[in-house]
Amino acid sequence: MGVALGHMVGSLTVGKKKYAEVEADVIALMSEADSLQKELLKLVDRDAEVFEPLAKAYGLPKETEEEKNHKQKVMEAALKNACSVPLDIMRACCKAIELHEGFAAKGSAIAISDAGCGVACCKAALLAASLNVFIKTRAMTDRAYAEKINQETDALLEKYTSLADRVFDAVAKRLR
Amino acid sequence: MGVALGHMVGSLTVGKKKYAEVEADVIALMSEADSLQKELLKLVDRDAEVFEPLAKAYGLPKETEEEKNHKQKVMEAALKNACSVPLDIMRACCKAIELHEGFAAKGSAIAISDAGCGVACCKAALLAASLNVFIKTRAMTDRAYAEKINQETDALLEKYTSLADRVFDAVAKRLR
Repeated sequence: MGVALGHMVGSLTVGKKKYAEVEADVIALMSEADSLQKELLKLVDRDAEVFEPLAKAYGLPKETEEEKNHKQKVMEAALKNACSVPLDIMRACCKAIELHEGFAAKGSAIAISDAGCGVACCKAALLAASLNVFIKTRAMTDRAYAEKINQETDALLEKYTSLADRVFDAVAKRLR
Repeated sequence: MGVALGHMVGSLTVGKKKYAEVEADVIALMSEADSLQKELLKLVDRDAEVFEPLAKAYGLPKETEEEKNHKQKVMEAALKNACSVPLDIMRACCKAIELHEGFAAKGSAIAISDAGCGVACCKAALLAASLNVFIKTRAMTDRAYAEKINQETDALLEKYTSLADRVFDAVAKRLR
């Protein structure tokens, strides 16, 4: 929804005389927003797909030592696999926030509030995806791997939640 | 969507032995979330309704002095009316954030991430609605009225965006 709002800002800008100077830039932003939206929709389906083997792994028996070891191995592989998708979703949300920086700066004044709403949605999606990463990493036995992923997640959160806030504040300032 | 996620946390909590102690509280939260969701859906329709006279007012002629005065009066009334809806949406989002404080504190551990996603969505909706208020107030001629609304908007933003952040951080902390 966030990316769709960004795209709409573009649609309301392109073709207007007043914005002729930035038209090429806005068309490029719209094309990126379009790919990103498709990618995000695929990732949402993929997120459901990688959850299935994980749900199955949770159900494995753990009566004997052998079963316990087997379950742990299957779980670990499923967790690592399932973790990669919300991390990709986060990366896509970060790109979406960057695109909104462009839409907010170059988009038509009549659509600028949509850039603000869009970036707020993208930030919420980024935060939600990070929880989906943390749920997976905390269950991992391989702590070095888990910590590496957590660090990457924290770095993305730090950089892009503050960029999202700056873009939103710039829009709010322009509107008041 | 935010409130629906909160409600889901409730559904995944009620009926579980482990959460018997908070069950009555969680049922009360769910009932409030349910009313709030209905109210928000009505407000979204209402927001579109009150925009119509505003769009018409923008289109009034302003050739003669008389037309200008008439347009200004009609615009002002339409703006005040149109402004009350996003402000009501903000108030409902604030209540939704408060409900998530409850869901995050009392909800089942398996659904806690949904409380985090829900509160992030409610915060995004609160921010988006505030832009919808500012668009209206900046066009008003009655600056005293406009400033009063802006102050109320700022007060809601200040109190409830930080509450939303605290609820989200508490969820993230519990999950890591």
